[in-house]
Amino acid sequence: MTIRVGIMGYGNLGRGVECALKQNPDMELTAVFTRRDPGSVKILTEGVNVYPAKDAKDLADQVDVLILCGGSATDLPEQTPEYAKYFNVVDSFDTHAKIPEHFAAVDKAAREAGNTAVISAGWDPGMFSLNRLYGSAVLPDGKDYTFWGRGVSQGHSDAIRRIAGVKDARQYTIPVESALEAIRSGETPELTTRQKHTRECFVVAGEGADKAAIEKEIVTMPNYFADYDTTVHFISQEEMERDHRSLPHGGFVIRSGKTGWDLEHNHVIEYSLKLDSNPEFTSSVIVACARAAYRMKQEGMTGCKTILDLPPAYLSSKSGEELRKELL
Amino acid sequence: MTIRVGIMGYGNLGRGVECALKQNPDMELTAVFTRRDPGSVKILTEGVNVYPAKDAKDLADQVDVLILCGGSATDLPEQTPEYAKYFNVVDSFDTHAKIPEHFAAVDKAAREAGNTAVISAGWDPGMFSLNRLYGSAVLPDGKDYTFWGRGVSQGHSDAIRRIAGVKDARQYTIPVESALEAIRSGETPELTTRQKHTRECFVVAGEGADKAAIEKEIVTMPNYFADYDTTVHFISQEEMERDHRSLPHGGFVIRSGKTGWDLEHNHVIEYSLKLDSNPEFTSSVIVACARAAYRMKQEGMTGCKTILDLPPAYLSSKSGEELRKELL
Repeated sequence: MTIRVGIMGYGNLGRGVECALKQNPDMELTAVFTRRDPGSVKILTEGVNVYPAKDAKDLADQVDVLILCGGSATDLPEQTPEYAKYFNVVDSFDTHAKIPEHFAAVDKAAREAGNTAVISAGWDPGMFSLNRLYGSAVLPDGKDYTFWGRGVSQGHSDAIRRIAGVKDARQYTIPVESALEAIRSGETPELTTRQKHTRECFVVAGEGADKAAIEKEIVTMPNYFADYDTTVHFISQEEMERDHRSLPHGGFVIRSGKTGWDLEHNHVIEYSLKLDSNPEFTSSVIVACARAAYRMKQEGMTGCKTILDLPPAYLSSKSGEELRKELL
Repeated sequence: MTIRVGIMGYGNLGRGVECALKQNPDMELTAVFTRRDPGSVKILTEGVNVYPAKDAKDLADQVDVLILCGGSATDLPEQTPEYAKYFNVVDSFDTHAKIPEHFAAVDKAAREAGNTAVISAGWDPGMFSLNRLYGSAVLPDGKDYTFWGRGVSQGHSDAIRRIAGVKDARQYTIPVESALEAIRSGETPELTTRQKHTRECFVVAGEGADKAAIEKEIVTMPNYFADYDTTVHFISQEEMERDHRSLPHGGFVIRSGKTGWDLEHNHVIEYSLKLDSNPEFTSSVIVACARAAYRMKQEGMTGCKTILDLPPAYLSSKSGEELRKELL
């Protein structure tokens, strides 16, 4: 039986989910929901309708899993608990500090309705969390490090765009190679923010803008840039379009730990991602989690889950038998 | 409540399990079982007894999980189904081709007894299998590659030791760096055995042995060496003791895959291990799986499982709440 999937919200992430569904023959897109005028939203899949978000629950019997593609700041804290009343849901809620609160709200709604919800699917939180978990479970005497990049941080890019005189901006987060190398060699240094990442900014200044003032405002911006070594490059709008259109990202989770009666042996576990498209990779993880949500619901495992709770085999389209034979 | 663990078989792996238990305060070693004379087996943990293997089932009420540390060739195919009748068990069965058969035998015994069994815990099968699974579930249009090394292959070392005139030998499996680099850059080449790994052998020849004949016998040995580029170094027994006593190992699982409506974006996921002690790392994975086996039994999830079936959170000593707060 094909798993019927709905998408709520059709931005970069919604489009990524649509593309990922095309790659998974055991799943199909059945509906897209939007808060915009449905007539104004052009999707890629032929024969699938776009509906107003407010009508979603009327289609509950046609959707096995609803994927929520809104933002973590204001959309998901409302949407996920609300739609968990009517659907099995998956979201990519990524405000780490607010996960416990979000989990509680979604868990309550999903349990009451007998639905399965998976929150915080993606790569961080998501695949990186899994690797932090496995690393610490296998090597309890150890330390883990997460590095992000090289990749575009949309929050930091937006922060630059809000500065007076800035027309456009793109910010790259870059891990410090020497820190990575030290950890790979088995060292377990305490690293400051500045020692882990640098930030590189590409900025299009408006006509007659004071570039020195813009640069100073960027590098001294609290929280976003002040604690980092930040470099600023002014470029033309043409260069921005030509060289900085895509949304690459990635990063590293490294666990270094010791074993042996006297902790005499060292081990390094490294997981890394090199992604051409951050939203499409995130969507691909979400879609695999939607498969797991569907299966858990079938087996009566309801309530809110995260990727840490999902039996790995449930993410795959293959049977347990195939997995044991082919890839165990 | 502390999880009470028994060890069946006290070689490199059994000793590794003993060391790993010391690192996990929620677990404790309660008994070691051996087929040797128990009086001849000295273990590291004070206050724990060594019993004859044949008496194990009499202690079933004192052991929550029995870890089977025998070999895959002849011990585990008999021991795991047998002891699954009396205990929750974990083994590290690693003959990939025979996993389906072993799974079926263990599943039958564990189900009938209402016990939980985890087979094939370790790193390959084990952590590498998990990464092959997650990689293929997230990037279905892709290809994965597993490389082993640099590390000691005990089977290959043994094969060399059986050659006439050889006193001692140690064989290292080494991944071909240029193949790794090509895959990391997003290529998905078809690689022959020879293009993936080389083999390096350190050999102590006996007094007056024909070194040229030994070298020829090694490099032309079918299955073990003939399909590889193999180098042979003759060294003294002193050099063997000094430079080749430890059992390092490791390797890489790399998934390269595409996303996007027209598969226009590429992604590379890489998981790697660099291990000072192969048996101790394997033991550390086994012990985390023993924790999961105990929990699954508590929840009535009985029968045979592999690491692909274990909810990741069950491997950790932390609660779901702590995991969501601290590392999700």
